[in-house]
Formats: sequence, C-alpha cells, structure tokens
Amino acid sequence: MSTDAEQSGAPRRRQGGRSARVRDAVVAATVAELEESGYDKLGIAAVAARSGVHETSIYRRWKTRDGLVAEATFALFERNIAVADRGSLVEDLTATMSAAGRYLDSPLARAALQFGLGLPRDADTTRELRARWSARFQAFEQIFERAAARGEWPAEVDSRPLLQALIGAVYLRVHVLREPVTPKHLRPLVEAVLAVRPH
Amino acid sequence: MSTDAEQSGAPRRRQGGRSARVRDAVVAATVAELEESGYDKLGIAAVAARSGVHETSIYRRWKTRDGLVAEATFALFERNIAVADRGSLVEDLTATMSAAGRYLDSPLARAALQFGLGLPRDADTTRELRARWSARFQAFEQIFERAAARGEWPAEVDSRPLLQALIGAVYLRVHVLREPVTPKHLRPLVEAVLAVRPH
Repeated sequence: MSTDAEQSGAPRRRQGGRSARVRDAVVAATVAELEESGYDKLGIAAVAARSGVHETSIYRRWKTRDGLVAEATFALFERNIAVADRGSLVEDLTATMSAAGRYLDSPLARAALQFGLGLPRDADTTRELRARWSARFQAFEQIFERAAARGEWPAEVDSRPLLQALIGAVYLRVHVLREPVTPKHLRPLVEAVLAVRPH
Repeated sequence: MSTDAEQSGAPRRRQGGRSARVRDAVVAATVAELEESGYDKLGIAAVAARSGVHETSIYRRWKTRDGLVAEATFALFERNIAVADRGSLVEDLTATMSAAGRYLDSPLARAALQFGLGLPRDADTTRELRARWSARFQAFEQIFERAAARGEWPAEVDSRPLLQALIGAVYLRVHVLREPVTPKHLRPLVEAVLAVRPH
C-alpha cells in the first residue's frame, strides 16, 4: 500500500495524512499509559496530555474509554507477540505460540484479559471485538500461507480452526492449567495439532 | 472399585466410610452455596450449617476457604459437563465440547474463572490445580479410549494435547473471541483438530 509518505522515504503509516497521525499518537499514548500505570488508572485526560490531542477529539473518534483501551490492547498484542518466520511451519508456530504464552503470562496481559472479560456483551461491542480478533488472526495465518508457498502445508486446508486450537491451548495452559509454554513444551502440542505423527 | 457399600446395594461412594460421607456432604453444601449465592459471598459458616459438619472439621481437611471452593468448582464442572458417549469420536467430542462451552458461558462458570485467575501462584496451589485438571482430563480421555476400542482412533496417539487444543479453543471462543459454541459451530473445529480432512 504505497502512500506519498512512503515515496518520500518518510515512515510508512497505515492510512495517509493527519487523521492517521492523530490516531497513531493517541494509541501510542494510551499504550504508554497502560504500560506505566495499568488498566484501572487509565484516564483520557492523561492520554490527551501525553498525545497532544484534545479530549473532545479523542471521544469523537473512539466514543468511549473502553473503545480506545481495546484498540490499544490489540496494539500491545501486535507489539509483544512477534510472528516468527524461520522457514519451518512447526518452528514458526512453536516460536510464535511460545512468545504469545510469555506475553499472556505478564501482569499487563493479565490485566488486559480482565479488561476483556469485563467488557459489555452487547451486539456492537461483540461485533467490534470479533473484527479485531479476525484481523489479529490474519497475521498468524501468514505462517500457514508461507508454509504453503514452500510446499510444506496443503494450501486448501483452512488454518483458522487450527490457530484457534493452538492459541486456545496456550491461553488454557497460562490461565487455567498452569502448564509451561516454553518452545520445548509447546512443540509437541503444535505437532499434534498439525497431525505430525511421531516417527 | 467394589466396596462393602456396593456389595450391599447401597449407593457407591468414591472412598469407604464416614470420611467420605463428611467430604461429600461438605462439597455438596459448598456447591449449593456457590449456586445460590455466588463465589464472593461463600462463607465456611454457611457451609458448616448446611452440611452439619463443624467449621473446625472443614478447616482441618481443606486448610483454606480457597481449597474447599476449588474442590467444589471441579465438582461443578463434572456435574455440568456431561461426557458424551454416542458411539462416534467426532460426535462425542462435538457434544462434549459444546456442553463445556454452554456451561463456561454461564454466570457461575464465569465467576469460577475469576476465582481461578485470582488464586495465588505459589508452588502448592499450582501443584494442586495441575493435579485436579489432570484428573478432569482423564474423564475426557475416555472419549478417545472408547474410539480406539471401536477401531476409530489409533490407540497409540496421545489424546491429551488434542484435548488441550479443543478445550482451549472452546475457552477462547467463549471468553475472548465471542464466537458461538453450538455443535454446528464446533464440529468443523473438532474435525480440523482430528485431521479429518473434508471429503
């Protein structure tokens, strides 16, 4: 997605222009506030001061504190969970799932989980969350697409249920079962879900 | 496991004698209190009154309120999530995972999740939780064992990682992704994890 900014050598932005700069500044400020002070203390006044964007502009765009905090939470996931690209489907998934597990086990991600669990269950909130998760999963689907391009994975097999299974298992191990999420511990899980039988 | 009680035609108990009756009465009373008043209001005095067992006896056996509530929580899982036996691996897993999802989406199970997330992360608590979960999973493993006996599943394949993947996916759909957990929605997930390719 080429933009004027890219052609001039300036840093790439997701959309063009002032609107995107405002969005990026506000989300970055929110992320920084969450990292420094946590979810309970997050205040729009502090975000406004930090980003240099007026509170009214922030509320005009995100409508509620929850809406902004949700967007910042997904930005934190993206920043903290690197999608590995090592040339092997099993290794890419193992490394990525392990990175996800390490982040999920952090105080910040545990607070994010509580925030998510507490969000209202109305149709609009649910629709927004589903859309955000769908976009997040697309980043993980690239692991399978690269594997298919290498001839390592059949391209016609839908990777989404397998990603739900793997990410779900990591959540379960961290938050419920209290099982380790090191690569050594997750590799057999990845191989089992991919139906890589021991040989 | 035959006991004197079984041979006399009386109801089967997990262990013999008075100790088991006291345990069953206290756990049943705790379960009833949780169902009626929720997790926050659970008090040992009410459990003692309801079960007819003294508070000192309760604390002698369970050491802490958390320990008793944990045992009752697992009893609630067992009671509310029927392990299906319909003669087909895909259908047994689909029905069981859907039942799990329906229960997990209930106010009581959501409160149980919060209780679990709040438990201390010391070594003793972790060891006890891992042991309880291991026992719980053994009930689900029977689905695969029955399938293997029918010749429907290779007996040498370890079902535990696949169960983590399936149960993890259900938790993720209920608590995070907000996706449905009806049999219609879960059957493709079960088939994908079992590597049942569409034909």
